Amino acid sequence: MGPEPETVAELGEFGLIERVVGGRRQPATTLLGPGDDAAVVVAGDGRVVACTDVLVEGVHFRFDWSDPVHVGHKAVAANLADIAAMGASPTAVLVGLACPPTTKVPVIDGIFAGIFAEAGRGRAGVVGGDTTSGPAVVISITALGDLGGRAPVLRGGAMPGDVVAVAGNLGWSAAGLAVLRRGFRSPVNVVAAHRAPEPPYAAGVDAAEAGATAMIDVSDGLLADLGHIGAASSVAIDVRTDLVQVHQRLVDVASALGGDPRHWVLTGGEDHALAATFPGPHSVPKGWHTIGTVGRGEGVTVDGKAYQGAVGWQHWR
Amino acid sequence: MGPEPETVAELGEFGLIERVVGGRRQPATTLLGPGDDAAVVVAGDGRVVACTDVLVEGVHFRFDWSDPVHVGHKAVAANLADIAAMGASPTAVLVGLACPPTTKVPVIDGIFAGIFAEAGRGRAGVVGGDTTSGPAVVISITALGDLGGRAPVLRGGAMPGDVVAVAGNLGWSAAGLAVLRRGFRSPVNVVAAHRAPEPPYAAGVDAAEAGATAMIDVSDGLLADLGHIGAASSVAIDVRTDLVQVHQRLVDVASALGGDPRHWVLTGGEDHALAATFPGPHSVPKGWHTIGTVGRGEGVTVDGKAYQGAVGWQHWR
Repeated sequence: MGPEPETVAELGEFGLIERVVGGRRQPATTLLGPGDDAAVVVAGDGRVVACTDVLVEGVHFRFDWSDPVHVGHKAVAANLADIAAMGASPTAVLVGLACPPTTKVPVIDGIFAGIFAEAGRGRAGVVGGDTTSGPAVVISITALGDLGGRAPVLRGGAMPGDVVAVAGNLGWSAAGLAVLRRGFRSPVNVVAAHRAPEPPYAAGVDAAEAGATAMIDVSDGLLADLGHIGAASSVAIDVRTDLVQVHQRLVDVASALGGDPRHWVLTGGEDHALAATFPGPHSVPKGWHTIGTVGRGEGVTVDGKAYQGAVGWQHWR
Repeated sequence: MGPEPETVAELGEFGLIERVVGGRRQPATTLLGPGDDAAVVVAGDGRVVACTDVLVEGVHFRFDWSDPVHVGHKAVAANLADIAAMGASPTAVLVGLACPPTTKVPVIDGIFAGIFAEAGRGRAGVVGGDTTSGPAVVISITALGDLGGRAPVLRGGAMPGDVVAVAGNLGWSAAGLAVLRRGFRSPVNVVAAHRAPEPPYAAGVDAAEAGATAMIDVSDGLLADLGHIGAASSVAIDVRTDLVQVHQRLVDVASALGGDPRHWVLTGGEDHALAATFPGPHSVPKGWHTIGTVGRGEGVTVDGKAYQGAVGWQHWR
């Protein structure tokens, strides 16, 4: 036995793979996990839902604001939320990772700890991947999911007369980012919401079973993502601020820092909440709450008017 | 209409997606292609085969040696060969792409032209992906495949008494790299084999149907990858040089450049040929040719002896 390896280069590719996957448990949907040319995953529905998301160090995350475990967690959460937004249950993730050879082993350990933890929360296996040398840490996650016999819920199915509802946190990630930007580390639950969002995966299946007509993962911000539903469905969407919940914790943070909590809720990205449209108020399932209506026309309005706040959503990307 | 965008930054994310996917045809297995939160792909078998491979500029490819179209082609070929090596038929690929904002639009056009062309050759849809800013061009491809009711062919199933066979080109990519390293651009078919390998995808399914006991994609080099089968199967593998075909073109190139064509065949990587073991000579299907035998013990030998050539395979990575 030589000394404990300190960097990825010392560990080597096979050492890294063994370190990352050794002794991990996989869900029953993982028929064949890492180690062969490819993995085999249950797709009982006869269709598989798939999406990919890439996170780049310095663009999507900074190691001075997020621990490696948070980065791995967030990369998986962003992808599994996309699976949930189709009305599917996550089954598996694959991980493409590029990093400088000088990357310290605990950074890799942390990233994969976050990946396995959040995949586990979503009941998805971590079934394969590839690790390689690169100029920065780049994490590419592909997630797979199963529709359980349901039709996928697309962005384009909203109809005039539908109601708009959301599930999960909104504005928390933006509030956490505002806290971090001011150099603070608390309130911890707001900061945690930015570093390691926990999307409501099961709410996506609930929405599909309840007859949701359109659904999207809120990654760019509520108004921006409702705009995607509106455009794909050729409808207008109006959000009513008296229905939008602004958690007291966000009010407190905004009061301390001078921000606008409602602006965070309406435009903050990266919470990976789900937004959907339903045929009527009685079809909105438990865990979702109604925030607006679908009408004829185009565009997203707030209380019937164009939103006057600064367009914040591109800012968070 | 403004001026034609020159860089990815000018094009913007949505412009890039529209440019890349607009007007493309997808195979029938693509139930829902790019544009929503996730794609939906046929998995008629009830299982899905999945793998991921990451290519990094400056590590796996250089734009002065390979055109963007070759880079896209090669990224897909490497992944679909892994699907084929399980005995599965490719169905879909997803593309994660990071690139500097200054990347010229024709580079992106070329990468995706290569991706769509090789995916099309493998009958796979290009069903989704993500494009983002990054410090270098990083291409992460995930491929999906269908087993058509067959058991996956793993690395660990070879048995003493089996024969070893290969399908596809061996040594061509290494020969092409040797040519490029000397500053030449011909012979063109050798250089093309390095830039844009064409793995024999259908041969993987043929091998599975013929009862292959183990199979692998030759990405690191024939001896190295047979070593993976040997280790996973706890068997010894002997390659007989009198059975290994060395194409006259490789002999000619080696003669001109001073290389050893057999060394290229035995240790050159990145051709993405397939190597497999079969229960006996009569079970080796058309398109495959026998090159050796499986015995008790461990390790890979050439004509019964340890291979004396330089260990070349890590070199090509």
